[in-house]
Amino acid sequence: MKAVCILGSTGSIGTQTLEVIGRFRDRLEVSALAAGSNVELLLEQAKQFRPRLVSVHSREDAARLREALADPSIRVVHGSEGLIEVASEPSDLVIGALVGRLGLEPVLAALRSGSQVALANKEVLVTAGQLVLQEAKRAGAGIVPLDSEHVAIQQCLAGHPREALRRVVLTASGGPFREATLQQMEAATPEQALAHPTWEMGSKISVDSATLLNKGFEIIEARWLFDLDPDDIDVVIHPESIIHSFVEYRDGSWLAQMGIPDMRIPIAYTLGMPERLPLPDLPALDLVGIGQLRFEAPDLERFPALGLAREALRTGGTAPAVLNAANEVAVAAFLAGRIPFTAIAATSETVLEEHTVLPGLMLDEIREADRRARERAGRIVGEPSV
Amino acid sequence: MKAVCILGSTGSIGTQTLEVIGRFRDRLEVSALAAGSNVELLLEQAKQFRPRLVSVHSREDAARLREALADPSIRVVHGSEGLIEVASEPSDLVIGALVGRLGLEPVLAALRSGSQVALANKEVLVTAGQLVLQEAKRAGAGIVPLDSEHVAIQQCLAGHPREALRRVVLTASGGPFREATLQQMEAATPEQALAHPTWEMGSKISVDSATLLNKGFEIIEARWLFDLDPDDIDVVIHPESIIHSFVEYRDGSWLAQMGIPDMRIPIAYTLGMPERLPLPDLPALDLVGIGQLRFEAPDLERFPALGLAREALRTGGTAPAVLNAANEVAVAAFLAGRIPFTAIAATSETVLEEHTVLPGLMLDEIREADRRARERAGRIVGEPSV
Repeated sequence: MKAVCILGSTGSIGTQTLEVIGRFRDRLEVSALAAGSNVELLLEQAKQFRPRLVSVHSREDAARLREALADPSIRVVHGSEGLIEVASEPSDLVIGALVGRLGLEPVLAALRSGSQVALANKEVLVTAGQLVLQEAKRAGAGIVPLDSEHVAIQQCLAGHPREALRRVVLTASGGPFREATLQQMEAATPEQALAHPTWEMGSKISVDSATLLNKGFEIIEARWLFDLDPDDIDVVIHPESIIHSFVEYRDGSWLAQMGIPDMRIPIAYTLGMPERLPLPDLPALDLVGIGQLRFEAPDLERFPALGLAREALRTGGTAPAVLNAANEVAVAAFLAGRIPFTAIAATSETVLEEHTVLPGLMLDEIREADRRARERAGRIVGEPSV
Repeated sequence: MKAVCILGSTGSIGTQTLEVIGRFRDRLEVSALAAGSNVELLLEQAKQFRPRLVSVHSREDAARLREALADPSIRVVHGSEGLIEVASEPSDLVIGALVGRLGLEPVLAALRSGSQVALANKEVLVTAGQLVLQEAKRAGAGIVPLDSEHVAIQQCLAGHPREALRRVVLTASGGPFREATLQQMEAATPEQALAHPTWEMGSKISVDSATLLNKGFEIIEARWLFDLDPDDIDVVIHPESIIHSFVEYRDGSWLAQMGIPDMRIPIAYTLGMPERLPLPDLPALDLVGIGQLRFEAPDLERFPALGLAREALRTGGTAPAVLNAANEVAVAAFLAGRIPFTAIAATSETVLEEHTVLPGLMLDEIREADRRARERAGRIVGEPSV
């Protein structure tokens, strides 16, 4: 029996993870769940999966949940301490599915408890990749991917000598503005940015996919997850989102992992490892029906965020954390209708340019860089609270 | 040092194998070479790679070669016994790259000597799959693929639990008549049939690719090489020949092996195993330049040979050997201008229909079925010698 803890159980990845766990109750159980404010859904999940521990954001929601559960075997905690408690609960696998930098401390706590962590929450590695890897090494804990691209790479690396690897190529759908002009992008509404052509995801990651920063973050994620030279990580636009990524070996042979765009497939792979769980009722991948798989080079003019991520990775230290922080503020401002779509990358660029890079090997240093970047970005986007 | 013997060293696979060996003289050496009548090329190869043993078809050519070589350290033999001698020469790997059923006895001899055999010569497994596998098992020798599709499947199976396999999907370029009408195919010349759109190959396999019987043979080959249920082997037309085959797992995840259509890549993979040899100077696979990879269902109306192969595999016993024999005769007749292109499959169908199936577990039984099928096919195509 594998005990699974989910950080972010009511989000897109969290609910799909529970859907998969629900199919394999004979081998997977839920140790703990953490959510934000969706008490109703968390209540339902807790009743169905009976974890030992659940956490919500506010004290009030915790009290409401405790009452509604009326089950002394399920402990209810709250706040950022509650989140850390859930992450530290003894588990075989902790699903890091929170959104944004918020997920960093819980992931560090899970690693310190010796749990293996599956990361969907890519901002954690973007913000503090080196620190997180050091912590994992010290604790003897492993980090495995839970992003469709990185699970694809993992499947293409399995069983082949690592020294023969030439490079990896991440695929990107191109997002909703793949064919848009710069003028159209300047006038883009949140609704347009959220209309992802192939994947159904949360709103933060959908906007990041529209700017292609999400793909830039995946370059950073791949760099840490697979210990790659940043120059050996490429990106190709593949509008159908059927090939989830490639690996190229030194003999010119490529391996690709493919499938319908359904996160339950990579989630089941990560939950099942080293076994492969059967998902017989998912729609079949119909290549003949799809007819063609297309490939294009990414346009760095219209999608400058992709270049920013590469630059931040090359700079290293606190630069990726600053890019992430500025982007979180800018995305929120765009979704609130305060800045145009193209100002998201422009904001991040300004904040990144002004930032004095520090090594970023101490959590406090990262937190401070993150805080300042948020402050600076807040001023640029005219955040009311600044 | 890995000692490699090549059966069919002057053919397309043979020369490319030597090209790859020439790049890795520090780890690969040539133990023996067998060719047919291209004495000039074999002389050159023997001088360059200095095998202990070489064989040609005729006694006269053997004498000429012996004189031209003037090297007592290289023994020259001839005829079918010479071929068996070469196959039996102690080697780490025997490349089975002869054309047609002719390759069966040498492959059996190589296996009996305990050598691992890499099979490009797919007619061997088509004719006597079960017998060849029994022989390999008895001798404790292994059979590995040397066909781009099957090397692709092997790479997609490596590192993944076998019980999780759902099926394999072989890709086919569709050949030169992919878009031809049945009328155009009826009038097709040998020159048109030999003009393969993506791969440069010998003439027999090029015609088999034009009828799609080659893909049918690959289904049979895959059945034996990977111990698959014939119903778990599918075919999809992929005109660009970039994806060399797919494997589908039970979670809906597919793996594909890809690369430019260059046989040196699968040859290097097979020669290098378990290492992956570097081929840095091959042209890069440029997916963006190619732009799209297309997929179509095979048309069994225009390409009945594909259905015939499946039927022969389902029937089992001597049926695939009979199909292969009839096809060899019909292809030769087509290349000689004696029958139209569409009569190739029609001839095989008639011979297959009339054949009384035997178990096919004894070499004599297979030889007899083969002989009779050739005779019958010869009568149908109006062979002068019959």
